[in-house]
Amino acid sequence: MHNPQLNKNGELQHLLTIEGLPRAIVTQILDTASSFVGISDREVKKVPLMRGKSVFNLFFENSTRTRTTFEIASKRLSADVINLNISASSTSKGESLLDTIDNLAAMHADMFVVRHAQSGAPYLIAKHLIDTQRSHVHVVNAGDGRHAHPTQGLLDMYTIRHYKQDFSNLTVAIVGDILHSRVARSDIHALTTLGVPEVRAIGPRTLLPSGLEQMGVRVFHNMEEGLRGVDVIIMLRLQNERMSGALLPSAQEYFKSYGLTTERLALAKPDAIVMHPGPMNRGVEIESAVADGAQAVILPQVTFGIAVRMAVMSILAGN
Amino acid sequence: MHNPQLNKNGELQHLLTIEGLPRAIVTQILDTASSFVGISDREVKKVPLMRGKSVFNLFFENSTRTRTTFEIASKRLSADVINLNISASSTSKGESLLDTIDNLAAMHADMFVVRHAQSGAPYLIAKHLIDTQRSHVHVVNAGDGRHAHPTQGLLDMYTIRHYKQDFSNLTVAIVGDILHSRVARSDIHALTTLGVPEVRAIGPRTLLPSGLEQMGVRVFHNMEEGLRGVDVIIMLRLQNERMSGALLPSAQEYFKSYGLTTERLALAKPDAIVMHPGPMNRGVEIESAVADGAQAVILPQVTFGIAVRMAVMSILAGN
Amino acid sequence: MHNPQLNKNGELQHLLTIEGLPRAIVTQILDTASSFVGISDREVKKVPLMRGKSVFNLFFENSTRTRTTFEIASKRLSADVINLNISASSTSKGESLLDTIDNLAAMHADMFVVRHAQSGAPYLIAKHLIDTQRSHVHVVNAGDGRHAHPTQGLLDMYTIRHYKQDFSNLTVAIVGDILHSRVARSDIHALTTLGVPEVRAIGPRTLLPSGLEQMGVRVFHNMEEGLRGVDVIIMLRLQNERMSGALLPSAQEYFKSYGLTTERLALAKPDAIVMHPGPMNRGVEIESAVADGAQAVILPQVTFGIAVRMAVMSILAGN
Repeated sequence: MHNPQLNKNGELQHLLTIEGLPRAIVTQILDTASSFVGISDREVKKVPLMRGKSVFNLFFENSTRTRTTFEIASKRLSADVINLNISASSTSKGESLLDTIDNLAAMHADMFVVRHAQSGAPYLIAKHLIDTQRSHVHVVNAGDGRHAHPTQGLLDMYTIRHYKQDFSNLTVAIVGDILHSRVARSDIHALTTLGVPEVRAIGPRTLLPSGLEQMGVRVFHNMEEGLRGVDVIIMLRLQNERMSGALLPSAQEYFKSYGLTTERLALAKPDAIVMHPGPMNRGVEIESAVADGAQAVILPQVTFGIAVRMAVMSILAGN
Repeated sequence: MHNPQLNKNGELQHLLTIEGLPRAIVTQILDTASSFVGISDREVKKVPLMRGKSVFNLFFENSTRTRTTFEIASKRLSADVINLNISASSTSKGESLLDTIDNLAAMHADMFVVRHAQSGAPYLIAKHLIDTQRSHVHVVNAGDGRHAHPTQGLLDMYTIRHYKQDFSNLTVAIVGDILHSRVARSDIHALTTLGVPEVRAIGPRTLLPSGLEQMGVRVFHNMEEGLRGVDVIIMLRLQNERMSGALLPSAQEYFKSYGLTTERLALAKPDAIVMHPGPMNRGVEIESAVADGAQAVILPQVTFGIAVRMAVMSILAGN
Repeated sequence: MHNPQLNKNGELQHLLTIEGLPRAIVTQILDTASSFVGISDREVKKVPLMRGKSVFNLFFENSTRTRTTFEIASKRLSADVINLNISASSTSKGESLLDTIDNLAAMHADMFVVRHAQSGAPYLIAKHLIDTQRSHVHVVNAGDGRHAHPTQGLLDMYTIRHYKQDFSNLTVAIVGDILHSRVARSDIHALTTLGVPEVRAIGPRTLLPSGLEQMGVRVFHNMEEGLRGVDVIIMLRLQNERMSGALLPSAQEYFKSYGLTTERLALAKPDAIVMHPGPMNRGVEIESAVADGAQAVILPQVTFGIAVRMAVMSILAGN
């Protein structure tokens, strides 16, 4: 099977992962997002690009935050949005995932935004739609297990491009629990695709996956060494469930070794930017002074995230 | 009291049950639905028939699936929809059902779509609105207890008419737990109203209500006998709570006697259609090969369901 | 810090409490609401005043009823509404209140409608937005702890003005659990601001706060004495948790002393009106005959409530 994300003409049909996505398409998304950034500042923040289209937010895993960004993006594109929290619904009645999808597709859905705790669920849905000749219904992966979170990866790229213009001479460090992070995975694929020459992963051995080097990533277990001279720092959220137990001694210990403090930030380039996908654990992975400091671009990430999601959705709807 | 569903001019004012609904009104709904089937295929799937109207989805019993169909139908009619999951709300504060209704009606509601575990709740609401001279607020029954599910009944009729054109020479079999099924009850009333000459009920004694013969239904306890020569098979969902215990030995036993298999389907007419209100229990009441087979029209039912709900809502709003 | 509700030009920027709100602004809101009362009767109940604006209903405390009124008001103003039930969301991931606000503001929110169990939460949010130069994002308090419920206070004033025209010669009694009531507090401030000469508080010692006299309120522990000659009776809901235990012996005892019965109502002026913020406990604080009687204006309160919320939101959006 050819890349299920692209149609016969090589256009974006589904957004499942950044892995294997042609650079031209990543750039098309970022360029389209640029045109939407201005819309959010206007008096009337809507464009009629998806008027009358039905977007289903299928959240098999709860995430108010991500769901909200897609809901806003849909409404600003004038689409009709239906939020479905599926854990509490049909699947609890024993209906299979694909029966649920068939059912919603039969209601003339135009797009499924899918969040699922299991890696590969959005791919499974897209493949089913393709196999049954209904690939005019588009799938957007809004985070699947530990696999991918492509719109987060794209908004991170948008943010980097906004502040650094060019990817071709950057050093980017990703810090924290890379092992369990779909954000990290998507970021690494995106940075590689866009030609970033040096991508670094910083974290304790227990939270770094094997195989990073094969992906072209330089691994650091020492935070100070890893941060030296970088242009971009992407901090990851430390999930509560990791903070005690087998993988980490405690949140305090983690902060001591891998928390981003003002002192550590000073090791990066003077104009380095600090990113975080949110929600932040202040005092765990990041010091408040850094989170609220002049180098943090965490809130612009959120703003750009709406524009990037509008871009992805409108490109899909147009193809 | 005259039929509370009709106004003084004999027009549809509330949709509570198909029982007693004049054939002309059933036909009007199906004809109106025809005109909406095309809309869902258009680029912009919206018509302005209910622009500025406020539709309240009052779900006293959870049903994401049915709520979604009404939400989509409302949005495609350009209405404003407000979803209220009432179990978790005012009634838990001790407010009575009718106080809740008075309150929402005072917000200038135009329509209540009501789902309730208790039979008769939508009727109670409609009667209260009529008694207090507010019958410009319309009530649609979206399923009440074991009583009725009229929009499901209507979409089933739409589906049958779509595939069979004429009702006047059909044999229709309804299979399964008819005792607890509001769908079965609504289907029987609709089929009778539309002049279907032979309606059959197939199921074990424990799951068939008494009084079916008086409704003009032929009763079969043997699946093979019941299916012989039918034009339409309506399978019912076997609720999980019936699958073990007093009424049935087990799901496996049920499938052995009443599951719709390819072999059994061959007993019906060669062009017989297979329907199911969903969600299906594959391997319990229906074999997967049948559910996904050429004679199944289960997904078209869903598609027609949106159009039928749009028809009901727009007819009510226009009267 | 000057009044955080007003901007430099003395216009309404946030609605946090009626305390300290200039009379001219209260009157402006009531006058604006007048113009919206008619809209809800029209065929198309929408005006485009907030088209393309994003309103976030931030309910940190569940209240379907209040959330619904704001959702309807927003939709009738053509705004995009996003409902966030926050208890179940980011704050459960350990994100701070202000990080959540920053995040949503970065999505280009135009308005936050905030309900919170803690007094002062909406003020905290407004202050944070002002301090960070983002006061173009407006905050509406939809009820905070025991502190204030300004839109309820305003709709109560609208109702009184509708039935009594002039505030300058009225006697208004507020009856019940004033100690725990944000509604009572907002009503007292509003009545005082609008120049009502006599405001009475009626209730048992355990449910009246100290300091009422300093607010210019006459205190009565005897219901009959307190009701004598009043023009307006505002009944308060008795929260379930007060009905037994330390503060009150039982709901029955409460009704015997402070329930509004037909006999007691006869002690007020013959044209006195009876108000209640809902949801009512029939037979606890109010007799059904009174709740449904000719002097009750409880449902008109609900109707006016939509218009008042539209007024507040459109005034804020315009400033």
